[in-house]
Amino acid sequence: MQQEPLVGDAFGEMIRDALAVSTGVGPRPLAGGRLPRPVIEIIEREDGLINGAPAAPYLDPPSAWPDHDHRALSRVRGRVLDIGVGAGRIALELQRRGVAVTGLDVSAGAIEVCRRRGVHDLVLATVDEHAAAAGPTYDTFLLLGNNLGLIGGADRALGFLAALAALARPGAQLIAHGTDPYNTTDPVHVAYHRLNRSRGRLGGQLRLRVRYRELATEWFDYLVCSVDELRELVAGTPWRIADIDNADAPYYLATLELAATG
Amino acid sequence: MQQEPLVGDAFGEMIRDALAVSTGVGPRPLAGGRLPRPVIEIIEREDGLINGAPAAPYLDPPSAWPDHDHRALSRVRGRVLDIGVGAGRIALELQRRGVAVTGLDVSAGAIEVCRRRGVHDLVLATVDEHAAAAGPTYDTFLLLGNNLGLIGGADRALGFLAALAALARPGAQLIAHGTDPYNTTDPVHVAYHRLNRSRGRLGGQLRLRVRYRELATEWFDYLVCSVDELRELVAGTPWRIADIDNADAPYYLATLELAATG
Repeated sequence: MQQEPLVGDAFGEMIRDALAVSTGVGPRPLAGGRLPRPVIEIIEREDGLINGAPAAPYLDPPSAWPDHDHRALSRVRGRVLDIGVGAGRIALELQRRGVAVTGLDVSAGAIEVCRRRGVHDLVLATVDEHAAAAGPTYDTFLLLGNNLGLIGGADRALGFLAALAALARPGAQLIAHGTDPYNTTDPVHVAYHRLNRSRGRLGGQLRLRVRYRELATEWFDYLVCSVDELRELVAGTPWRIADIDNADAPYYLATLELAATG
Repeated sequence: MQQEPLVGDAFGEMIRDALAVSTGVGPRPLAGGRLPRPVIEIIEREDGLINGAPAAPYLDPPSAWPDHDHRALSRVRGRVLDIGVGAGRIALELQRRGVAVTGLDVSAGAIEVCRRRGVHDLVLATVDEHAAAAGPTYDTFLLLGNNLGLIGGADRALGFLAALAALARPGAQLIAHGTDPYNTTDPVHVAYHRLNRSRGRLGGQLRLRVRYRELATEWFDYLVCSVDELRELVAGTPWRIADIDNADAPYYLATLELAATG
């Protein structure tokens, strides 16, 4: 009687448990009802691929971050929207530096964890919803932790970048961490990229869901694209690519600037 | 287009990758095609529950083992069959001590890893197949690493214990590591135990599969039972419970002895 997982806030439950494990406070996963077990993020791709990775890095202090996160933060200016705030590691560090930062996430559990960890300004919404609310505007948008993926795909990128433009102050910038997915000979990935292209998607437009214990998120698109693909997606939007930092290839940090309005 | 994973030797591929990560030799999972990523064992239960755990402990040296593994090995005598040999950690230590040990597993990948790590005597088979082959017989059977679960369920235990009796020398013993599953108030587990009982299974008769990347094993039954349940399963078999070591509850070490033939 193989059952599908329940649809729910799998990511939030995972972040909640990761916080409980890291602090030793509150209910947390135990093996045999007794021994703490590490919290693992499980990501399933529509083609049956599944991968697990420790969730602890979502809570890492700046000393444990990859260098490109520090380079991204050195570029921040003005009021910041941290998109996909997760457990708040970036927002907390910006707060500590005196930067005005708002954390945005679609996961209620993630938002709750950010609040408990001390992030002051939080919004539970998609970028589209936040733009529609006609609230604050921002000077810097952050998509770190590979969250360039949140632009979703070629079909979605225009709308996503338009929503950010609607939230942007003049001269705003978008700093996004991406990964070139094509630096692989793994037949599982190569076949999936080919399948994607055969149905008119970009090769790295992944269809994923997060699973945690009995829960799964809805399936969502997460775009892993090359810099060349990003250039094409950005063309025709209010944004232009101002800089590509390729020092940690295949990872890259793309800085987009809002084109001056005429 | 959500697809089911391919059925294959998911456990073996995982153990192979865990070995490659631990030795730094051979192809191994990389993040972004560059950074080594820890190998995670993902176990899915038929009710949609999924859990991940690091695979590295399959390769742990004796210094990292839980105490009950050492207590189990102190009880070993004569020729040993290590059932579910995995990556060979127990068999390698027994070999080092000069014990004659055979490693048995249904995973071709696990057997290959054991061979590469230096386990001399290996059999790729189920317990039933090994018994049917009418080969060697044994003085000690080991079911460590929670492998009491391999007796499967109430429907399967009789056959499993009969196969071991067929492989047994006079006075043989079976040393099995189990876990009492009922020491939990987790509603996900409590509901699953209730479902199991409603269909005539023991509460902890788990229906599982291992998933690793694009592969999944077939679904299999894995029995997590209390000591009282074990007593009932053993009654009417050629075995009797000689000792229960409960020092690490909810884990326990059950030592069964072959009843003297009349």
